[in-house]
Amino acid sequence: MSTGEFVIESITILGTAAFALSAVLAALDKKVDIFTVIVLGIITAVGGGTIRDCILDAPVFWSIDISYITIACAASVFGFSFFPLMQLKSINKVYLYIDTLAIAMFAVQGTYKAWSMGFGLPVAPVILGTITAVGGGIVRDVLLQRPSLLLTKELYAIPVALGCLTYSLVLSFAPQYSQIGALLSAGLIVYIRHLSIQKQMVVPRWAIINHGK
Amino acid sequence: MSTGEFVIESITILGTAAFALSAVLAALDKKVDIFTVIVLGIITAVGGGTIRDCILDAPVFWSIDISYITIACAASVFGFSFFPLMQLKSINKVYLYIDTLAIAMFAVQGTYKAWSMGFGLPVAPVILGTITAVGGGIVRDVLLQRPSLLLTKELYAIPVALGCLTYSLVLSFAPQYSQIGALLSAGLIVYIRHLSIQKQMVVPRWAIINHGK
Amino acid sequence: MSTGEFVIESITILGTAAFALSAVLAALDKKVDIFTVIVLGIITAVGGGTIRDCILDAPVFWSIDISYITIACAASVFGFSFFPLMQLKSINKVYLYIDTLAIAMFAVQGTYKAWSMGFGLPVAPVILGTITAVGGGIVRDVLLQRPSLLLTKELYAIPVALGCLTYSLVLSFAPQYSQIGALLSAGLIVYIRHLSIQKQMVVPRWAIINHGK
Repeated sequence: MSTGEFVIESITILGTAAFALSAVLAALDKKVDIFTVIVLGIITAVGGGTIRDCILDAPVFWSIDISYITIACAASVFGFSFFPLMQLKSINKVYLYIDTLAIAMFAVQGTYKAWSMGFGLPVAPVILGTITAVGGGIVRDVLLQRPSLLLTKELYAIPVALGCLTYSLVLSFAPQYSQIGALLSAGLIVYIRHLSIQKQMVVPRWAIINHGK
Repeated sequence: MSTGEFVIESITILGTAAFALSAVLAALDKKVDIFTVIVLGIITAVGGGTIRDCILDAPVFWSIDISYITIACAASVFGFSFFPLMQLKSINKVYLYIDTLAIAMFAVQGTYKAWSMGFGLPVAPVILGTITAVGGGIVRDVLLQRPSLLLTKELYAIPVALGCLTYSLVLSFAPQYSQIGALLSAGLIVYIRHLSIQKQMVVPRWAIINHGK
Repeated sequence: MSTGEFVIESITILGTAAFALSAVLAALDKKVDIFTVIVLGIITAVGGGTIRDCILDAPVFWSIDISYITIACAASVFGFSFFPLMQLKSINKVYLYIDTLAIAMFAVQGTYKAWSMGFGLPVAPVILGTITAVGGGIVRDVLLQRPSLLLTKELYAIPVALGCLTYSLVLSFAPQYSQIGALLSAGLIVYIRHLSIQKQMVVPRWAIINHGK
């Protein structure tokens, strides 16, 4: 296994766990049981990729490699048992950055998968990359009856979409720069998320509908 | 391009835009940003057909022709910028009739697509035609945490289902009248929607569950 | 038709009807119309299996046998007309047990279908069996803006998942006991549901997240 593969493997495992842990945090004030935590953890971790694969008509990724499911299960049980830890400010920040790496990588992977199948280029890969990264979280919030990330001012789905757009443009018009484009696009997502986490940067007022009222 | 093709092409473009604009109107009181408006616009415009194609196991229609996505994007940005216009009574009525033409056409198209694939005749095409026309709007409302059209007294999904039923019956038992059946079924949808828009006709009281209470 | 086939056929018909009737009960306080009751009835009855088949990339089961749709329709109309009957304590209990037989059987069927396709063994069949049995009810609750069964303390999805897990383990490690395993797993689901219905057994306190607060 090369260094690059090891890094990607590590981010995949940590990212899947981070997604599942986000379900624990989201469920905290709903008094749900451990089974529901596991269900929501799995949905958050693999839901986006599942929707992507159904739309692409590709075999669902966790039918080929079930480790995504087992990691999400394990992380959910861990989060259920030790959730007060995750509410500690320092650990929460580590968690937020692992989540950021995860959405960046899943966004780039989803965009690449759609592009490599020649699916509705160059627009559709942007949509499928975004669904891969944020779809699971949106389904989780719908099931928890919480406002989803689409309804908040937080910069979460927007950097993801920008990264997917950047990568899809690179893949479509300069495929020879595919690798550097992937790094650049993921970096863009991480950078904007960093501004959001560290400097509380939010969606600017002019970009809010009906902001005059 | 024949006159018929031109009419269908025009209704498709206008209808896709009208669906996306409905997301702008639905999002107005939620203070969402332009990105969310675009996401909801795309979901409203292509969501129903996407669910239909996943159920039919057919290639998703916007992977073959991405213009649906670009039209929905453009209409969402337009609606975001000029939404006060759409609240003007006269323009709103024009909008409602474009939306009516769109649901009528998408319902008929969805029914036909399922029928032409021999999918669960004669019942399933009714379901898939209805999903095509109203599925996107329902997903939009779930994401916006609004009561969906299934929970209102407005005559919206009912005329769609009646039109799909009519068309599926014609296709199943008198396929030689396919074209006249399509026009008749679309006309039925438009007529009932017209009664709803113009005369505020709603679901009759006896058809409401538990209406005695 | 052997006795076994007759029993399975009967449970399928009664179970599909019971699922549709649950939509009538769920919709009672929302003042919806008969069309919405039918839509929710169909979604509850076939929604879980539809999601399963999309994930498995198998032909959707009701495209092959539309009787599921017609039974769900008929049960919804019956439930709409005679819902006060279903609120009678004695009849409600009969209904609860038919529903219990239905979830047990659909869970076992869904697990078997995923296993027989070699789909992500041995973990994924558990997920797909659970989706088959409870997926439709969850979509119904989302559309009705009610807290879904994932947010209640009732033992509903948990026994289903335990039954699917049992059956998937039997199928994966002792496939020669497939039939007895199916009966055992369904029996486990029915037994826990019985404890829930008859003795009001609920999720134990230690299994609730943040239960100290």
